[in-house]
Amino acid sequence: MPEYFSIRWEDGVVIMLDQRFLPDEVIYRKYTDCWEVGSAISQMVIRGAPAIGIAAGFGLALSAFYSKTDHADGLIQELSDSADYLRRSRPTAINLFSAIDRIMRQVINTNSKDIDLIKHVVLSESNKIADEDVAMNKKIAQYGQQFIPDQANVIHHCNTGGLATGGYGTALGVIRAAHEFGKNIHVFVDETRPRLQGARLTSWELQQLNIPHTVIVDGASGYIMKSKKIDACLVGCDRIASNGDVANKIGTYNLAIVANAHGVPFYSVGPTTTIDFSIASGKDIPIEERPENEITHIGETHITPNGVNVFNPAFDVTPAEYISAIITNLGVAIPPYDHSLRNLLIG
Amino acid sequence: MPEYFSIRWEDGVVIMLDQRFLPDEVIYRKYTDCWEVGSAISQMVIRGAPAIGIAAGFGLALSAFYSKTDHADGLIQELSDSADYLRRSRPTAINLFSAIDRIMRQVINTNSKDIDLIKHVVLSESNKIADEDVAMNKKIAQYGQQFIPDQANVIHHCNTGGLATGGYGTALGVIRAAHEFGKNIHVFVDETRPRLQGARLTSWELQQLNIPHTVIVDGASGYIMKSKKIDACLVGCDRIASNGDVANKIGTYNLAIVANAHGVPFYSVGPTTTIDFSIASGKDIPIEERPENEITHIGETHITPNGVNVFNPAFDVTPAEYISAIITNLGVAIPPYDHSLRNLLIG
Repeated sequence: MPEYFSIRWEDGVVIMLDQRFLPDEVIYRKYTDCWEVGSAISQMVIRGAPAIGIAAGFGLALSAFYSKTDHADGLIQELSDSADYLRRSRPTAINLFSAIDRIMRQVINTNSKDIDLIKHVVLSESNKIADEDVAMNKKIAQYGQQFIPDQANVIHHCNTGGLATGGYGTALGVIRAAHEFGKNIHVFVDETRPRLQGARLTSWELQQLNIPHTVIVDGASGYIMKSKKIDACLVGCDRIASNGDVANKIGTYNLAIVANAHGVPFYSVGPTTTIDFSIASGKDIPIEERPENEITHIGETHITPNGVNVFNPAFDVTPAEYISAIITNLGVAIPPYDHSLRNLLIG
Repeated sequence: MPEYFSIRWEDGVVIMLDQRFLPDEVIYRKYTDCWEVGSAISQMVIRGAPAIGIAAGFGLALSAFYSKTDHADGLIQELSDSADYLRRSRPTAINLFSAIDRIMRQVINTNSKDIDLIKHVVLSESNKIADEDVAMNKKIAQYGQQFIPDQANVIHHCNTGGLATGGYGTALGVIRAAHEFGKNIHVFVDETRPRLQGARLTSWELQQLNIPHTVIVDGASGYIMKSKKIDACLVGCDRIASNGDVANKIGTYNLAIVANAHGVPFYSVGPTTTIDFSIASGKDIPIEERPENEITHIGETHITPNGVNVFNPAFDVTPAEYISAIITNLGVAIPPYDHSLRNLLIG
């Protein structure tokens, strides 16, 4: 087991690995304030759909833990304010909203005026979300194995490892399990501009795990597919619509189109909590636009002329027809997704 | 007219704008030694297929200009050695080789023992290559206009402007002419990892020319084509095979596939000197692999973990079937290219 973790709750303190400084520095930060957790999510101290869901849950837990009110109604109001604030931290990944909703639903369902009980519910539910995520990832990794042959070459976009989740990883969890099963997997790592989650985070995690890998620029995936045997593309997901359209890190859609043109299977990997059945198709998924400096600067280096106009969508939507299968903790959904995604939950 | 230039010959001195420091610094360097010119090409002080052809020609001109030999045979041997050296500077763009071959052929054809005449031939031919390039670009720009409607939104990859050529530009020349004709063109500029020719050079040129533009990461082109009306993708070319396959900057192939998936016309733009009829298809075009540090570092910023494995092909090949038309100085070739490319030269 690698010795790093993305996020952890320890006696009223939320500890996060500050992913903005990887791979150069491994800095853990401590948070005791819900507002600071929301800001850490916005600023991408922590990122990855499952991980920000966990972080939002722990944000609520901090609100409960440090509340000074002696009225249950006051506590619920504070939690509700914190929830509203956390919901505004990032718009695209569903996990953030579903973690908050799940905890708030538990609070309401408790229907109690006992402050200690309410606090206990928030703390226990937020920790459950974190623990369940690791368990779900290990299930995902098992279901994914059928698509990973021995000696597989795969292309991976963004980061979906232990850093993006409560632990183990989604798409990277499938890769990790393949490695653990002795499959001699090799990973071509899309660097994933603008924030370079592939170059900075995925390659770092693969190094910790001793999994062979090669970093490429995002624009090289077609050349790689044409010149080498590539068995699969594996990506995570930030929100899955009912019809199987998947929102994920910008560049995923291009990779899916390119994979399709080469007959390379394209797998979207994530827990069933990423499915948003309230949304018919990807058209309804809000796409976050992030600051210009993510494109105009890399570290201290200014790469564009002063005053240049930039457009920085953080995500794109890959239509269901480009996705060979959606690998989840409850099994694998294949097209048509309208049926298969719902069937996963029925069991 | 913008006041910058990529390369110029002035009385025995080759002056080049050092493109490695753009957009932050506009530094012109002076060269009086052929070997230094070869190294400037390798290190990408100057880049762009037409521009490096011109640079190689001026490299030979320096060899001739400063030669101390008093035998014609000695001079021809020196030129031949210089030619061999320059040929090793970069492998993919055909313009480099054709410029060298053209000058050496003129030298041989002169069939003279008159040293001054030979020197004059080399100087005049190398300057002719530079001057012709600007004239060809203006022709290209005219032929390209039929594909650029008023209010056009286009996506452009890498840099193909005055910096990449003797002046005016190829794909960017078409865009520039559209702007000069008052077409209200807007350019989405692929940043073009790893060397960021789009973010650094194309956006800088478009600023000098007052052409509206927006920089995007390479992975965002699909999202842009899906969410906005895009009329065309325009790219340059480093070598065109007889069948219309085109080698160009890494990422071009991905962009072509993505354009195809959206029904967006994809145009490859360059002078007919970029066509290599000795090559049947793109499979025979040598693809340069460049140093790892182009991916692991941006400026002073180290973006990957230490010791990471990197693969850095500088070019890819876009198969002819993805190319709507090849726009040249002698007219427009359309599929099937086996015939149309040859017909351009017949006239």
